[in-house]
Amino acid sequence: MCELLGMSANVPTDICFSFAGLMRRGGQTGPHADGWGITFYEDKGCRAFHDPRPSAQSEVAHFVRRHPIKSRIVICHIRRANRGRIALENTHPFQRELWGRPWSFAHNGQLKGVKRWRLGAYCPIGSTDSEHAFCWLMDALRTRFAKPPSDRELAAAVAELARRLSALGVFNMLLSDGRSLFCHCSTKLAWLTRRAPFGPATLVDEDLTVNFEQETTPQDVVTVVATRPLTRDEAWTVMEPGSTVVFRQGEPVPLPRRRAPRRATQVTRDKAA
Amino acid sequence: MCELLGMSANVPTDICFSFAGLMRRGGQTGPHADGWGITFYEDKGCRAFHDPRPSAQSEVAHFVRRHPIKSRIVICHIRRANRGRIALENTHPFQRELWGRPWSFAHNGQLKGVKRWRLGAYCPIGSTDSEHAFCWLMDALRTRFAKPPSDRELAAAVAELARRLSALGVFNMLLSDGRSLFCHCSTKLAWLTRRAPFGPATLVDEDLTVNFEQETTPQDVVTVVATRPLTRDEAWTVMEPGSTVVFRQGEPVPLPRRRAPRRATQVTRDKAA
Repeated sequence: MCELLGMSANVPTDICFSFAGLMRRGGQTGPHADGWGITFYEDKGCRAFHDPRPSAQSEVAHFVRRHPIKSRIVICHIRRANRGRIALENTHPFQRELWGRPWSFAHNGQLKGVKRWRLGAYCPIGSTDSEHAFCWLMDALRTRFAKPPSDRELAAAVAELARRLSALGVFNMLLSDGRSLFCHCSTKLAWLTRRAPFGPATLVDEDLTVNFEQETTPQDVVTVVATRPLTRDEAWTVMEPGSTVVFRQGEPVPLPRRRAPRRATQVTRDKAA
Repeated sequence: MCELLGMSANVPTDICFSFAGLMRRGGQTGPHADGWGITFYEDKGCRAFHDPRPSAQSEVAHFVRRHPIKSRIVICHIRRANRGRIALENTHPFQRELWGRPWSFAHNGQLKGVKRWRLGAYCPIGSTDSEHAFCWLMDALRTRFAKPPSDRELAAAVAELARRLSALGVFNMLLSDGRSLFCHCSTKLAWLTRRAPFGPATLVDEDLTVNFEQETTPQDVVTVVATRPLTRDEAWTVMEPGSTVVFRQGEPVPLPRRRAPRRATQVTRDKAA
């Protein structure tokens, strides 16, 4: 299983502390040695670093860890390959443009049969089921909304599409369009919001403590999302399987009430959509 | 005017030497202080580094210079902003996916009125005329070829579309789909192929000499393309204004014979296409 890390903040914030913990899981404290990637959103743009080498030995990872890049939204992934060979093109986060926004997507889990789902405007570059699922998701949003919908409508649509994908297996996902951070938990995802009064936090994976009081202003709100809690002395919220949470400016935003689940016949039809 | 740097090679090759020269032009020996970016193709994938800071002071640039990334195709751009503010989203190379290939595009020059050209499937993220031109070009290829055409057809189509864009102003361009490096010269572009017997080369911008004989095997073929020659002791081919050259595996590939130029009425119609 891969590991995910995401961040949503109301001020440009560096993720070096959480990243330090995660990177150790890439071939050192964890078995996720098949590459890693990270996307930083800055204003309307984003930049990504990808490396098919284990994060614990990656020079690019060491660079990212040492050079704080301030961002409001971050998506990071370290990979344990199960579908698709170890290669740059199979390294998450994947990126596509829709409505003039740069979308990024990272996934852990497996989706049985997703490659049979027909695609339209977007086509995978690599061979993972994850990238296929991302292309399908982007296609579905593009088909449903010719122009960008309201944030509320978009959140509801992403949550619905994520549930459909989940039906194929395990689908823990982080997704962003540079405005919101969409998080879907199929089996494992947890989050934590840091806000004043800030205190110290200690990484589970490394003997490293940060006192956020010295690093922040009282107005800062920073949410971190991860497959497993990254710190040992903070209260993480473990997400319920099957749930979607959307963060904007560091805060969770309410989702429209979920409609009754679709019947099996409908799901079958949708699979071929 | 921005500066372009491209590479096409028949073996994974690092571009550190040429990059060293170019980076000095970003705020030190040249006025191109408004950001820079570089895309490396590795197999089917690619990775890019972007920084809105001047390349001469960019820590990311220093990292790229010190850590040789071996690649068969590279596109690099240092920017002097004339359209679009200095921001990550306006930093070349731009990227889009078409036919499951990751396309990258970098441009120098200005295209008057290109933003009035209608777009379809691709939409700019930033505000440059360059990214608009790239989206138009990708749209035109997608409309013309539902599936990837032969390399020969594709080269002819890119050359034709580049000529249409050139009619709006200055359009020196590097473009790649990970297989070919497409180079269009509107005013300024030069290239050089290094092959056995290799000799020494000295950068124009920095007191740095490399003896390529020690760095290469006799089978290596490496073409470097740049706005201005980067070395003082090698014979660069200066491209003819209005010409397109396509490189694959380091070698120029012949383009199909150019058709007679379109008449003015047709060009006018095409502009609104």
